[in-house]
Formats: sequence, structure tokens, C-alpha cells
Amino acid sequence: MGKFIVIDGPDGCGKTTQIRLLNQYLKRQHRRVLVVRDPGSTPISEGVRKILLNPRYKEMTPLTELFLYFASRAQLVDQIISPALKKNTIVICDRFLSSTIVYQGYAGNIGAKKVRDLWRQASGGFEPDITIILDVPPKKGFERIKNSRASSDRMEQKALLFHKKVRAGFIKLARSDKRKYKLIDGTKSISEIQTEIRRITNYLLRGLCEVRN
Amino acid sequence: MGKFIVIDGPDGCGKTTQIRLLNQYLKRQHRRVLVVRDPGSTPISEGVRKILLNPRYKEMTPLTELFLYFASRAQLVDQIISPALKKNTIVICDRFLSSTIVYQGYAGNIGAKKVRDLWRQASGGFEPDITIILDVPPKKGFERIKNSRASSDRMEQKALLFHKKVRAGFIKLARSDKRKYKLIDGTKSISEIQTEIRRITNYLLRGLCEVRN
Repeated sequence: MGKFIVIDGPDGCGKTTQIRLLNQYLKRQHRRVLVVRDPGSTPISEGVRKILLNPRYKEMTPLTELFLYFASRAQLVDQIISPALKKNTIVICDRFLSSTIVYQGYAGNIGAKKVRDLWRQASGGFEPDITIILDVPPKKGFERIKNSRASSDRMEQKALLFHKKVRAGFIKLARSDKRKYKLIDGTKSISEIQTEIRRITNYLLRGLCEVRN
Repeated sequence: MGKFIVIDGPDGCGKTTQIRLLNQYLKRQHRRVLVVRDPGSTPISEGVRKILLNPRYKEMTPLTELFLYFASRAQLVDQIISPALKKNTIVICDRFLSSTIVYQGYAGNIGAKKVRDLWRQASGGFEPDITIILDVPPKKGFERIKNSRASSDRMEQKALLFHKKVRAGFIKLARSDKRKYKLIDGTKSISEIQTEIRRITNYLLRGLCEVRN
């Protein structure tokens, strides 16, 4: 069986760069590696992703959003991730259940427990071997909005509050299970973060359960 | 509060005709009526419907299908059905949860209880006031396949078996709660069926819980 590694964190946390570097590192070791993104990476999941990201759909309810993420993910797991793991492949995924727990659960109005319970019940408990979360403070743009009252309308305030909730949610999630989640300071340099990710990955591949956090 | 009436049954059972006639009947009584279809009836739900019905997506897993139906439905409930009911409107819906319980639950491999539990947990238990099911035997085409061994391949056999399971599922569902579900013999004439549907609707509108089945 392969290993399923998720890299997650708020927008702009540097996930994409870190995934690319980890992929290169593992390939240099002649390992089978597959990089996917959630939502996406299958024709059906990409179709669902288009609906999720369509800016015209402002009326989308939190529950609709949740189910669309679950639909896209169920297809990705069944069609790509599970078969790859059976072929002893290391699957690296950009976002996964952790994002839904944080965005729709903690920061949205659905609740983290409900998100987790629904996914567990529906999927039979399919989860990553490890979820690495890159922690960064809400974007500087939002900080600026907070400090300049003139340019701050209700929606912008809401956006700032939401991004603060997202960060707090990721931290809370990481603390809820230190075996499954690893929190990395995303303000460090790219190479420092990558070193940390490789260390965690190597521990995982050697089958050592305990990774210092 | 309005009333939420679902008309359901296998493909070709005559739902559309019966919904049209019921809509006309209620409008002649100067009632507020709204006809919707599930999946569909909102831009987002219709977008999801397109993915569900896309014949290219043969690889769609049962769980993906389930979540897409739920996503489409959650949006329809929140955006159209719930607001209409609050405005004292009678909402008539072509298919709803009953179809998912039967197609993905009984006839698919997910299980009726799991479908019901997931929807209840996610939606907080939003259900129709009454679900009228038109019972018809699997299409004559499928009967013919069964009787002519020459033209019957594995997929056709599977299709026949599936349609038999669908019919059995609808009957089982109707019997599981005679207060919520009403089973009508769909082989009767259009006007006989419509008379039956109007009788059930009138009972419901008068606030009488018990409708003879």
C-alpha cells in the first residue's frame, strides 16, 4: 500500500510550491508519486469544481457547497487515489477533507463535527495518512482593511473575519490530532518549510507513527 | 405555511402529465402553486443536473451521484421550496428524496437507511408533506428482453434487474410509512390517477393527517 499525503492551508500559504518540491524530491528517489488536487483531477470532479468556483453562483448555500466538495472528492478517491495507493504509489493531494472541515465546518456555519461525521459515514472513513498544514496569518491585504476604516465595508470586514476563522480553524484542527495533522509555520523560507515537509514524509514512509510536531 | 407535495415513480410512470393536471386543478381554485423538478429548477441545481445526466460520465461512482443529488436538492430547498412554503404556496415537485432512497439506496449499492440518515443529518430533516408514488411495472421493453434470450446481453439483463429493483424499492418505501407515502396504481387511466391524486391533495390541504392508502 502507498501513502496518502495532503498539503493544506489558507490561500496563498505556498502549498503549490511545496507540493512541486516534494514531488521532485520523491521522484529523485525513484518512488512512484502522483500529485492531485481536490476538488478536481478527474473529468467529473473538474466539472464539479467549475460549479464550485463559478463567481456567478453567489447564492450557493453552505450545504450545497459541502455536498459538491464531497461529490468531487468521492469521485477522486474512487477513480484515482484508492487505485494509486493499491499500486504502492505516494499520492500528494492539494487540499482534502481538512479544507472542508475548516472552511465549511469551523469558518462556515455547518460545524466541524457535522462535516467530519457526514464524510466518515458516507465514505466509510477514508482519510489521509498525514495532513500537513501550512500556517500563515490572514493576508496583509485584510490586515490593511482592518487598519483603514475608510475602505472597510461590511463585506470586506466579513472577509477578514472569515479568513481569521479559517486560520484559527486550521490551528484547531491540527491540535485535535497531532498524529494525523502536522502544523508548519508557513512564514518560514521555502527551503525551511520543504525540509520540514521532507522530514515528516520520510518518517511516514519509514512507517514510524510518531512524528514530532 | 404551504404544503410540499412530491410526485415520484419510475421513468415513464406518467409523473409529468399528472403534475400538469394537478397544477391546473389547484390554479383553478386560485391557490398559489409552484411546480419544480429535482434535480433542477435553480441555476446551480440545473448545472449539477447536467453533470448527473451527462452520458459521457459512465465512471461516476454511486457516492458521487448521491452527493450530487444532495447538492442539487439542498440548493433547491433553500432557494425555492422553503421560501415558497413560507409564502403559503403549494409546491409540487417532480421527484425528491424518495428517488434517491430508491435509486441509490434500494436499487444502488448504498442502502436506503444510509441515504435517509445522511440526508436527515445534513438537512436537519427536511421532508415533503406527502410523496405520491405512481407504481408501474418495468417497461415493456425490458419485459421483452427477458423473454427473448437472443437479444439479452449482460448489460440489458442488468438494466432489467435494476428496473425491477427500482419498482420493488418504491413499493417498499411506500409501505414503510403509509402516512408520508401514497402508492397509486400507475397502470390506471390518466383521469383515474388524477382523481386519486386530487383526493390525496385535498385531504392534505384540509389538514387531515390520515389519508386512506
